[in-house]
Amino acid sequence: MDRSRLEAFSDGVFAVAITLLALNLTVSGPGFHHPRLIDQLGAHWPSFVAYLISFFYIGIIWVNHHVLIRSIKVVDRTLLFVNLVLLLFVVLIPFSTGLVAEYLYHSLNDVDTRVAMVLYCAVFLGMALGFGAIFEWTLHGERVYQPVPRERHWAARIRFVGGGGVYILAILIALVNAIAAFIIVGLVAVYYIVENTPTTSGDTPAPESAGDNPT
Amino acid sequence: MDRSRLEAFSDGVFAVAITLLALNLTVSGPGFHHPRLIDQLGAHWPSFVAYLISFFYIGIIWVNHHVLIRSIKVVDRTLLFVNLVLLLFVVLIPFSTGLVAEYLYHSLNDVDTRVAMVLYCAVFLGMALGFGAIFEWTLHGERVYQPVPRERHWAARIRFVGGGGVYILAILIALVNAIAAFIIVGLVAVYYIVENTPTTSGDTPAPESAGDNPT
Amino acid sequence: MDRSRLEAFSDGVFAVAITLLALNLTVSGPGFHHPRLIDQLGAHWPSFVAYLISFFYIGIIWVNHHVLIRSIKVVDRTLLFVNLVLLLFVVLIPFSTGLVAEYLYHSLNDVDTRVAMVLYCAVFLGMALGFGAIFEWTLHGERVYQPVPRERHWAARIRFVGGGGVYILAILIALVNAIAAFIIVGLVAVYYIVENTPTTSGDTPAPESAGDNPT
Amino acid sequence: MDRSRLEAFSDGVFAVAITLLALNLTVSGPGFHHPRLIDQLGAHWPSFVAYLISFFYIGIIWVNHHVLIRSIKVVDRTLLFVNLVLLLFVVLIPFSTGLVAEYLYHSLNDVDTRVAMVLYCAVFLGMALGFGAIFEWTLHGERVYQPVPRERHWAARIRFVGGGGVYILAILIALVNAIAAFIIVGLVAVYYIVENTPTTSGDTPAPESAGDNPT
Repeated sequence: MDRSRLEAFSDGVFAVAITLLALNLTVSGPGFHHPRLIDQLGAHWPSFVAYLISFFYIGIIWVNHHVLIRSIKVVDRTLLFVNLVLLLFVVLIPFSTGLVAEYLYHSLNDVDTRVAMVLYCAVFLGMALGFGAIFEWTLHGERVYQPVPRERHWAARIRFVGGGGVYILAILIALVNAIAAFIIVGLVAVYYIVENTPTTSGDTPAPESAGDNPT
Repeated sequence: MDRSRLEAFSDGVFAVAITLLALNLTVSGPGFHHPRLIDQLGAHWPSFVAYLISFFYIGIIWVNHHVLIRSIKVVDRTLLFVNLVLLLFVVLIPFSTGLVAEYLYHSLNDVDTRVAMVLYCAVFLGMALGFGAIFEWTLHGERVYQPVPRERHWAARIRFVGGGGVYILAILIALVNAIAAFIIVGLVAVYYIVENTPTTSGDTPAPESAGDNPT
Repeated sequence: MDRSRLEAFSDGVFAVAITLLALNLTVSGPGFHHPRLIDQLGAHWPSFVAYLISFFYIGIIWVNHHVLIRSIKVVDRTLLFVNLVLLLFVVLIPFSTGLVAEYLYHSLNDVDTRVAMVLYCAVFLGMALGFGAIFEWTLHGERVYQPVPRERHWAARIRFVGGGGVYILAILIALVNAIAAFIIVGLVAVYYIVENTPTTSGDTPAPESAGDNPT
Repeated sequence: MDRSRLEAFSDGVFAVAITLLALNLTVSGPGFHHPRLIDQLGAHWPSFVAYLISFFYIGIIWVNHHVLIRSIKVVDRTLLFVNLVLLLFVVLIPFSTGLVAEYLYHSLNDVDTRVAMVLYCAVFLGMALGFGAIFEWTLHGERVYQPVPRERHWAARIRFVGGGGVYILAILIALVNAIAAFIIVGLVAVYYIVENTPTTSGDTPAPESAGDNPT
């Protein structure tokens, strides 16, 4: 099996999910009973912030998926199904984004908003776990062009667990304060964009690109 | 004709259909008249279970489609239209999934829920028949790299009919008990995922990969 | 410029449009005030018939687009924009399909239903004109591998005009009787599927495949 | 890294966004309380005009993206994230299009309509800025096959700034008169289609194709 359809299907799902995000951006239509549009747009700031954050999360996972899959020599059915688990959570992002935006609009920190924020963070956690499962798959057998040496497996895994740990922390904080958790996931997105952007030295591969084929 | 656009178009339809599944995940917005979000999420369990099942059905058919199409040497117009019949049912899955989830939410086993479950299973049956029609197309002429020997055609067909028989059984059961049919289609999905995952021996091709090109 | 992104983008639009068709399939949810689901599904037959017809129209235009684009040697900006005109009408199909289904459900032949049917047929006419414009583009210069000889240009165009003429006829009939026009566009879809399917002789290229590269 | 997945993902987003545009085309269903369908379609002319304009804006940016990306030799992570900024605004187009159409339908020039038109133009401005950022990226290092000579960088940038200036002008006009701004963005779309279509001489590369690989 080759990688091309795995990439094509995954790219399709990423592209549809990222575009559906904007379907959650809704304000009430014009009418006597509705507030001014400018006030509505202001009041719906959680929709726009959640759109931004989720857009870049899908973008980041797409970039990392891109790099990780390119390092793979042989595609087997296990990988196809592990990849489906990742996509299962990607597809949930427009739903969780719309939910958290709607509840934040209604109240910044009541119990329902906190539940919505827990769900929002949990979907990102699930996505990270799905990505981690693909990474774990690459550690075994002769599956990538430049395998991570066995003695560095645990170091690589710990970096992954550390990444997932941020989402667990966000979930715990969301139980107490929705806005604080929102800020954390936003900062994590900013961190990933900055960290993923190559520096001048240009030779600091992220763990997920450790097995990347440089040719 | 080459396979690439057949694959690209089909992958696009699979990707859009699998992502639209999540549009059915809706809970009422916040408000005084609505139950707590956590209770709503719990009460909408049929939406989440139906999402999971349908997601993996589309994923499984995508994996099998991937393998079957790769075995094909020459694409003709008949194949393009037979492939459209498969996609016709794939595209219906978000509709039938949303319908069954909505009716299960309202009642676990009234007559309408059973009708919705019959429809849900019937769409999977139609998808299996469409896939079977592509497989039948591969049995004739010089169309695949490693054709199934003529004497094994009926054995291969019977395996296919057996697969479709599960959905007929689920439809019959859905006429009596919607939840029992729901459990059956869920177990079938689990079975396909487990069966499709290679074992250590790694040399037990499923019937749809019988003509697969190993290179 | 190469053909690959023209094909990828067009396939994406075709795939999304064909999948969005199913979003028009809606029945009322469960409740005391609603009719039985089985009765609703029966009463919504126009939705299902319109879905079927539109699905195969998009499928047929995709197949023909596939064949025509493959015959092209050089992609220029004019072609990209002419192709956009075709896609403009393809994207309208889910809208016109939903509209005609909704109005047919309400009344089989009142003036509004006839207007909706005129629109439904007009979108197919626009799609045919867009496809014809791409075909016209292929007739000029050194743009295809096997150009249609100049003396056969008008014969080829007349076949195209004949095809578009069916939709004009359907529009005229829709002004009087919506169902009759519905039957005509349905029969045209069946005709194209049968005509496009290769016969045993296998050497009767449709006009749009006249310049097709047989290699 | 190669360009193929960058193109595939971007094409997916363009294709989904352009197709979702038509979801904004809605008229009220049939019923005693609703005006005739023909009157509704006429009254909803802003929806259809906005659909047309936005469709061609996405089409034009797709064509230009196509040309610009093809000129690139090496894809790095910075480019992937800059490309995401472009897509961020492309994905917003269906939202801003639906908003402006809805408010124009209600009133051609009240304050809310003008706010909606400002937003509509601002999304196009954002898209132009995103595209300009990709272009800026191509000016540095050894990133394209035929780099723009350093002494022509500012001339190229000024042409870009000029393009973005049209949207700033449209935003300023939208603050006073929504329809006038609507006409301007419509004319800009017409201009780009005409300008992008090759003339007989065929050798007037647009600034974004300045680094295009002619092979």
